Amino acid sequence: MAEAATARRRSRGGGGAARRAERTAVKIETARYIERNIPNFEVLNEEALQVIETNAETVLEEVGVNFVDNPAALERWRNAGADVQGERVRIPRGLARELIKTAPSQFTQHARNPEKSVVIGGRNLVLAPVYGPPFVRDANGGRRYATMEDFRKFVKLGYMSKWLHHSGGTVCEPTDVPVNKRHLDMLHAHMTLSDKPFMGSVTDPSRARDSVEMCEILFGKDFVQENTVMTSLININSPMTFDDVMMGALEVYAEANQACIISPFIVGGAMAPVSVAGTLTQVLAEVLAGIAYSQIVRPGAPVIFGAFVTSIDMNSGAPTFGTPEASLITYGAGQLARRLNLPYRSAGSFCGSKLPDAQAAYETANSLNMGLLSGVNFMLHACGWLEGGLVADFEKFVMDADQLGTLHGLARGVAYDENAQAMDAIREVGPGGHYLGCAHTQANFKEAFWKTQVLDYKPFETWEEEGARDTRTLASLRVEHLLNTYQQPELDPEIAAALAAYVAEKKASVPDAFM
Amino acid sequence: MAEAATARRRSRGGGGAARRAERTAVKIETARYIERNIPNFEVLNEEALQVIETNAETVLEEVGVNFVDNPAALERWRNAGADVQGERVRIPRGLARELIKTAPSQFTQHARNPEKSVVIGGRNLVLAPVYGPPFVRDANGGRRYATMEDFRKFVKLGYMSKWLHHSGGTVCEPTDVPVNKRHLDMLHAHMTLSDKPFMGSVTDPSRARDSVEMCEILFGKDFVQENTVMTSLININSPMTFDDVMMGALEVYAEANQACIISPFIVGGAMAPVSVAGTLTQVLAEVLAGIAYSQIVRPGAPVIFGAFVTSIDMNSGAPTFGTPEASLITYGAGQLARRLNLPYRSAGSFCGSKLPDAQAAYETANSLNMGLLSGVNFMLHACGWLEGGLVADFEKFVMDADQLGTLHGLARGVAYDENAQAMDAIREVGPGGHYLGCAHTQANFKEAFWKTQVLDYKPFETWEEEGARDTRTLASLRVEHLLNTYQQPELDPEIAAALAAYVAEKKASVPDAFM
Repeated sequence: MAEAATARRRSRGGGGAARRAERTAVKIETARYIERNIPNFEVLNEEALQVIETNAETVLEEVGVNFVDNPAALERWRNAGADVQGERVRIPRGLARELIKTAPSQFTQHARNPEKSVVIGGRNLVLAPVYGPPFVRDANGGRRYATMEDFRKFVKLGYMSKWLHHSGGTVCEPTDVPVNKRHLDMLHAHMTLSDKPFMGSVTDPSRARDSVEMCEILFGKDFVQENTVMTSLININSPMTFDDVMMGALEVYAEANQACIISPFIVGGAMAPVSVAGTLTQVLAEVLAGIAYSQIVRPGAPVIFGAFVTSIDMNSGAPTFGTPEASLITYGAGQLARRLNLPYRSAGSFCGSKLPDAQAAYETANSLNMGLLSGVNFMLHACGWLEGGLVADFEKFVMDADQLGTLHGLARGVAYDENAQAMDAIREVGPGGHYLGCAHTQANFKEAFWKTQVLDYKPFETWEEEGARDTRTLASLRVEHLLNTYQQPELDPEIAAALAAYVAEKKASVPDAFM
Repeated sequence: MAEAATARRRSRGGGGAARRAERTAVKIETARYIERNIPNFEVLNEEALQVIETNAETVLEEVGVNFVDNPAALERWRNAGADVQGERVRIPRGLARELIKTAPSQFTQHARNPEKSVVIGGRNLVLAPVYGPPFVRDANGGRRYATMEDFRKFVKLGYMSKWLHHSGGTVCEPTDVPVNKRHLDMLHAHMTLSDKPFMGSVTDPSRARDSVEMCEILFGKDFVQENTVMTSLININSPMTFDDVMMGALEVYAEANQACIISPFIVGGAMAPVSVAGTLTQVLAEVLAGIAYSQIVRPGAPVIFGAFVTSIDMNSGAPTFGTPEASLITYGAGQLARRLNLPYRSAGSFCGSKLPDAQAAYETANSLNMGLLSGVNFMLHACGWLEGGLVADFEKFVMDADQLGTLHGLARGVAYDENAQAMDAIREVGPGGHYLGCAHTQANFKEAFWKTQVLDYKPFETWEEEGARDTRTLASLRVEHLLNTYQQPELDPEIAAALAAYVAEKKASVPDAFM
């Protein structure tokens, strides 16, 4: 390592001031969404795929799905050729598959900063943060109900993360804001504190409409009519139940040509069979029904084949994460989505741990890796998830976001051009030599390896002198640093004022509700 | 979850005493080595493979490799057709590839308990613990030099781990035993405290001979002559240097028909080019030379294509683990090994962290997952590795060993027989129902999901009441429990006495040496 040390010392001689200035200027770098240059990992053979596909059609035809409290949906299904009895919709073999043919195989979700627009589908992977936790946790404050101030901090951290392409949606539930108004504050935060793409509200059809209207202010009405500017999360109440709230939001978004993830929410063994093949069958049946419905509402509406699937601890009934069964289902569902030519959503920084400790990291790394290799196109919950999704954790947010860099590195695959072959380096160094100082290393080392912003590689003695800090402690410092150096992205003052006015007016128009 | 709770309560009624007895009886269950029912993940296309293979032959022919302080090896190479100048051996294109054809594509390593013998190669994966750390760490005692007592504890923990198939070798360096005698104590521990397969000493050719002699006592001389009972680790001094100590041990083992892993030891950017393709080229050249040499010594000697490869932090010069570049190399090297029809060794519980914290677990999970998917047949360091391999950590040993269970689950792949299809369950439950109590779940839940022995899935309130323990704390309790309940496997008293006598005699025959 002597040469490296010498090189470091030499480089400290000149240009130090310039480099220090460069370091203090706040640079917000966002990596382009991942375009995979590696294959997908596939666990199902052709026979297994056909068995599952056949069985899913059987489920739709014989068992059917329920559309609850939604007479208009039942009428639409009847007109489309389904057998509707009460709220049960039985879909003849092949009908759903025929209906979904109008769904696009990929679509662009526009960000207000055009450089940060994302293409969802194909071989791409777009990463978005955790969604939905009512609690937050950090090393100093412990576990507590999330507030709007927490929400804003997470949006800032997401904006500053190089590896997150998307600002997400409900990064935590701001429980200090009335439930019928918090969507306004959340959208306002995504629109003004970040310039990355974001998600709309789904907790009521009227809130979905508010989301569209706020986007019309931000992007312009004409732009929103012609382009997709939101991707929102429509959960299916597995098994095979589509409730009126989620379907109401789906209807609003599909009619406005805005994208929806249509996603079974499954704890295997509770909401689906205890077997991988059985769960995949149900997932496929549910997604076929949901996406077919979206295309009945508006043919061509952009949608994503979603699969939130995890396993269960049969002793306690608790959901478990990062398990092999969840991985097999995620790999298999990716194959099913690709055969339907649909974008695929799954995986995330899933874990059951209460703390951002080793358990959390094992489970999360298992999930993130299988997410990349299973061909996921949109990964919600890609960072910050803790305790089965009950908690958004500040330290884990930056720890996971750092790990997302490894997915970018893996997805690059292996270059084998002349420079990558490095034959000159091998000839130059020869047996017994070393490569630190050779020309090829000097020319390539800056871009060769993924670099962490959180993890510790220092020698033991240095690490001990600095307080023997664990990952969480280091991450806590990074959270503090990021929030301290955050700078709001610019926004046209007229648009900013119009957004603020919209939010104020909407809030004043109805009384607070907390249920 | 009501049904599950009822089922649990009911089951507590009768048979409780029998079940308690069952729980207190010490059952040492060892899973059979993994036989993959999932594909391998491949990152190199045919063109990239051919480029790397062609370049590796160019390296062997034009640059060559050094065999240091080993005139007999040089003579062997000369006779085999290589161009030998001084200690440099240049191997004509195609010669190494021709020589390695006698190496078996798989072999059985016998354990003294025949149920624990392992087949290394094919689609199998055999898991062995960490190898080589001079330090140990645990939550109570901190970081300290390893002793023989630590060594014995690790062998016991390995014996009791369901997911470890192999007892390993130098699970830590017992620094309190003279360097010229510690191999005797280490082998004695593996032979008497466990009944799983193990590794032999490689630190001197005479110690390799001692290892063979001790095996002759344990297995019988005839058995050892006809069967492989050790797999030992022969590192190459990358780049492209084969030293006399390692080659001396290789010669002893190959002549005795005992297996060797022939393994480049590479920190990319230091001991190999900074690019993935360049590193793979060098790995292939080195392994071709090493395995060709083993087959010159004894055609048909069992060998493993090894690749210990990691990346470097170009700022500090520290090796880094769980990185995307290391994963790409591991995937690629697996493809190269399979094209040579050789068993493959790589991956492990690699991490750079100083503590068994989140960093350690991210890095380890990244490595373990890519190890499984890259087609590794023998995974050394599969649990317990900490701080770049300087430390064997007691808690991490059981934490990692628990995660090895997830690899078993993933490798099972997806069943799709009638039971796995679960169509009756889907029909029985229907929309809006749940699966916890259905017949299919009741019949299958025990085997359906991987079960942890370390991680925590309890509700938040219970977890908090129990002290809000993190993974390391829980693992510490498991280490204590395992060591407290350890029972030594039976061994023929005559053999035990003969082994003890051999060790005592050998130790008495030479003065202590600590260098």
